[in-house]
Amino acid sequence: MNKSKSKLKILPLGGLEQIGMNITIFEYEDDIIVVDCGIAFPEDEMLGIDLVIPDVEYLKTNIDKVRGIVLTHGHEDHIGALPYVLRDINVPIYGTKLTIGLVENKLREHKILNDVNRNVITPGQKINLGVFNIEFIRTTHSIPDPVALAITTPVGVVVHTGDFKIDFTPIYGKPIDLQKFAEIGKKGVLLLMADSTNAERPGYTMSETTVARAFDELFSEFKGKRIIVATFASNVDRVQQIIHAAGKYKRKVVVEGRSMINVVATAIELGYIKMPPKMMITHEEMSQYRDGQIVIITTGSQGEPMAALSRMASKTHRHINIQKGDKVILSSKPIPGNEKTVSKVINSLFSQGAEVIFEDTHVSGHAYQEELKLIHSLVMPKYFIPLHGEVRHMKKHAELAESLGMRSDRITILAPGDVYEIDFHSAEKTGHVNSQPIFVDGLGVGDVGSVVLRDRQKLSQDGLLTVVITMSKQTREVLAGPDIVSRGFVYVRESSDMMVEARAVVVKALDQCSRKNIRDWNKIKMSVRDALRDYLWVQTKRNPMILPVIMEVDA
Amino acid sequence: MNKSKSKLKILPLGGLEQIGMNITIFEYEDDIIVVDCGIAFPEDEMLGIDLVIPDVEYLKTNIDKVRGIVLTHGHEDHIGALPYVLRDINVPIYGTKLTIGLVENKLREHKILNDVNRNVITPGQKINLGVFNIEFIRTTHSIPDPVALAITTPVGVVVHTGDFKIDFTPIYGKPIDLQKFAEIGKKGVLLLMADSTNAERPGYTMSETTVARAFDELFSEFKGKRIIVATFASNVDRVQQIIHAAGKYKRKVVVEGRSMINVVATAIELGYIKMPPKMMITHEEMSQYRDGQIVIITTGSQGEPMAALSRMASKTHRHINIQKGDKVILSSKPIPGNEKTVSKVINSLFSQGAEVIFEDTHVSGHAYQEELKLIHSLVMPKYFIPLHGEVRHMKKHAELAESLGMRSDRITILAPGDVYEIDFHSAEKTGHVNSQPIFVDGLGVGDVGSVVLRDRQKLSQDGLLTVVITMSKQTREVLAGPDIVSRGFVYVRESSDMMVEARAVVVKALDQCSRKNIRDWNKIKMSVRDALRDYLWVQTKRNPMILPVIMEVDA
Repeated sequence: MNKSKSKLKILPLGGLEQIGMNITIFEYEDDIIVVDCGIAFPEDEMLGIDLVIPDVEYLKTNIDKVRGIVLTHGHEDHIGALPYVLRDINVPIYGTKLTIGLVENKLREHKILNDVNRNVITPGQKINLGVFNIEFIRTTHSIPDPVALAITTPVGVVVHTGDFKIDFTPIYGKPIDLQKFAEIGKKGVLLLMADSTNAERPGYTMSETTVARAFDELFSEFKGKRIIVATFASNVDRVQQIIHAAGKYKRKVVVEGRSMINVVATAIELGYIKMPPKMMITHEEMSQYRDGQIVIITTGSQGEPMAALSRMASKTHRHINIQKGDKVILSSKPIPGNEKTVSKVINSLFSQGAEVIFEDTHVSGHAYQEELKLIHSLVMPKYFIPLHGEVRHMKKHAELAESLGMRSDRITILAPGDVYEIDFHSAEKTGHVNSQPIFVDGLGVGDVGSVVLRDRQKLSQDGLLTVVITMSKQTREVLAGPDIVSRGFVYVRESSDMMVEARAVVVKALDQCSRKNIRDWNKIKMSVRDALRDYLWVQTKRNPMILPVIMEVDA
Repeated sequence: MNKSKSKLKILPLGGLEQIGMNITIFEYEDDIIVVDCGIAFPEDEMLGIDLVIPDVEYLKTNIDKVRGIVLTHGHEDHIGALPYVLRDINVPIYGTKLTIGLVENKLREHKILNDVNRNVITPGQKINLGVFNIEFIRTTHSIPDPVALAITTPVGVVVHTGDFKIDFTPIYGKPIDLQKFAEIGKKGVLLLMADSTNAERPGYTMSETTVARAFDELFSEFKGKRIIVATFASNVDRVQQIIHAAGKYKRKVVVEGRSMINVVATAIELGYIKMPPKMMITHEEMSQYRDGQIVIITTGSQGEPMAALSRMASKTHRHINIQKGDKVILSSKPIPGNEKTVSKVINSLFSQGAEVIFEDTHVSGHAYQEELKLIHSLVMPKYFIPLHGEVRHMKKHAELAESLGMRSDRITILAPGDVYEIDFHSAEKTGHVNSQPIFVDGLGVGDVGSVVLRDRQKLSQDGLLTVVITMSKQTREVLAGPDIVSRGFVYVRESSDMMVEARAVVVKALDQCSRKNIRDWNKIKMSVRDALRDYLWVQTKRNPMILPVIMEVDA
């Protein structure tokens, strides 16, 4: 792997071919830095999995080289895996104030806060980590305090955009520092790595500020009615805008949902959300106010079944019931794959007499095509790697770079685990490190793998039958059973024809084993399984899992 | 239920609060007609289910009254349940030529074609079924030969739109017969029941013909490259347009995917698709032509994992491999819930070097708001029921009707099973018939219910442990075991600490039963289950299904 000591090695462990689990390794000789350390949410086929974290075996093996983890912003797909990864590789972390604040919440929850070396940086600041000099560049995104990175390495400057949009009028803080991008670009950039999420979308994203107008209009229209706004907990600027509107229309604010309560508390504490004293009330205090004096800010805008909004919609929320006339604003867009669950919540809300408004109060946090073109044109890199996207997004981003005049052989689309090596003269994919995402399920990290998932998949489709037989150790005579118990297969009584016949099929298979004098337990089990499988397939065209258990008894 | 003999009773068994499973009963005294008889596709939580059909118990009970089933068009969600329902209630069916042709394919597959009385009607025709006179009105939709129904009943005229859009320039046949809607409206309509699918969308749908221009542009641009177009098999007009473009650009046509092959064959046979002789070739003949001379029309535009396009994308198609430079046109829009699977296919196609075009070659088959307003304004009904939509769509459609001046107390939003009674003076919901959708899984119809699904859900989340113990019938002494076998739980060896401890937990629970002299098998099982569940929860924060099996042996 270290065939050329003088090249910079870049190794993304995730964040490519998917949205989520962003983590990229930069290695030059004896120094490694890591950019971001996020989780992915499980795909549909990952049954029962809570979240997915990157496999950092490469970092464990090279732990002596690792100088630190640099964070671009505080979203889960960029910081969420830290509590797991820092247990294995305890290195300093660096990020802006809000980012570190959100990380600290997580570390506290996992009871490892005091074990971690945390460093708050400010945009504009430069730090040295080994041979790397990292300059933090102020950007704008759907969470305050995001940064891009200009990483000066012995082979040249690498610009990593993080997640960004070009917002000239953000809610909190200053606009993206285009001056800095221009300045760095002018000095010469070897490689640009940039956000591809919206590379398929023509034009520009609207500024977060434009949402204010939509809220103002809705709040003015909904006088006298209770307003419920659902959005991403991490979208601190959106929450700030809802608070602004609430202030203007003299409404008290109730915050619901665990992550919303946590993030809002952190944002208020660190000064990212400004709110007049006594504006926030608890749900117990709601009864002291009229409907028109209340706005509830809640999680659940993606239809997550356990989130506060879903629980209100399904009448299982402990404190808040939807009442006729409620105005529910979904200030978000369904993430691909969530459309149906979001629609389910919308339908339930309508059924209970609420009106649901799901348009015009959301803007994307990721750059559209014209914004990407602007960054490419300011940074003027020699080489380019599209980041943060599915294959379709990275391909489009590559096309976009080409349309701006970049040579196609200088653009590389990477997959997780790919090793990319670059110096001033060349850049190419040179290898691949095995990197299987790790599943987190309950307390277990990594104890659910593909075999377990395949079993869950099979169980979920056709259920299972357990066949239990007690046999004599000496004679292989059947002493009890066969008993057949099914779960998730079909609705059958033990006494039904199918179950009676199924037992007969097993008895016949055992007889055959006995006549052939088969004494190997595994072979007997296999005969039982095969006979039963064939019988059930003919009867039902279904293929449940069959689990034969034979108990040996001395007799 | 029959409290007033002089009212018309309307009972939708499906098609409301969901997209799919359209079936509506019209009953007047001793006569019943049924409009449509469709399936729904399973929701995500209906694990292992193939399709969902309506519960027609009400029709079985009243079989002597049922005069026939009238079909509006040939989509699965309107005809798909016929092979199942006709087995229980064998009544005549009525529909246009293509609709009946597609039904016949199904009946043939289910081997009941000759048992069914099939009647081809033409738009404009009127038939009498009991007291009902039904006039078929030509409409336009995303399949040829759709009709709306004007049902003259003893209490007045009911207009049922079926699924429709207003297309003035359809590909096959004539435009929607607005004259007829106007004429019937002028004479006086008691009740309108209309398609709500796109009630949330402002403006008009584009004509199917506009897609021709997009195809023409793409075909002219993709000279020399192989073109693959994926669309709905039932969208016969779309297929016709692809064939037109193929003809113009001198390409041969290959048809792939079982349902596409079936529908195209039926459509050609019945004259709904026109194609020059020798234009269609088999995949074996493809090798005789250059890439630029071929267009492949295929199923799989919704990312269905078993459809032809998905198999091409995942390199599992038996005859066709994606090759670098292929142009794949997705001529469809993902149905809500399918976005992620569609995206997966797009990514795989890109990964294999194809270019994927997923814009501009699709128009909706359902009326947008302005089209709905036109129909309401022509029909001028006294009462209104929004059909064919989720709650959100029906609410919007109700609002739209109100915005046109209809009194809100004359609009009724129904749920499946609701009984609605109407005469010239009043219309209201008067009752509810229990109507649980029936799950079809493999050969089984109705043998998978909520208990089985709940088990599958649980199995899919945390898997299962089977605990098997052989005990003496007489002494309750343990003769063999406990043996614990797990599937889909976590990756554990039998010899792992957790499994050794788990067995110890079971042994302890059995000891306690023995000391308390508990001899009831169910109580013993419950003790084992509870002890093991508690242990596993503490160890893993997971809650697998636990299946204790005790075998009794004489000893």
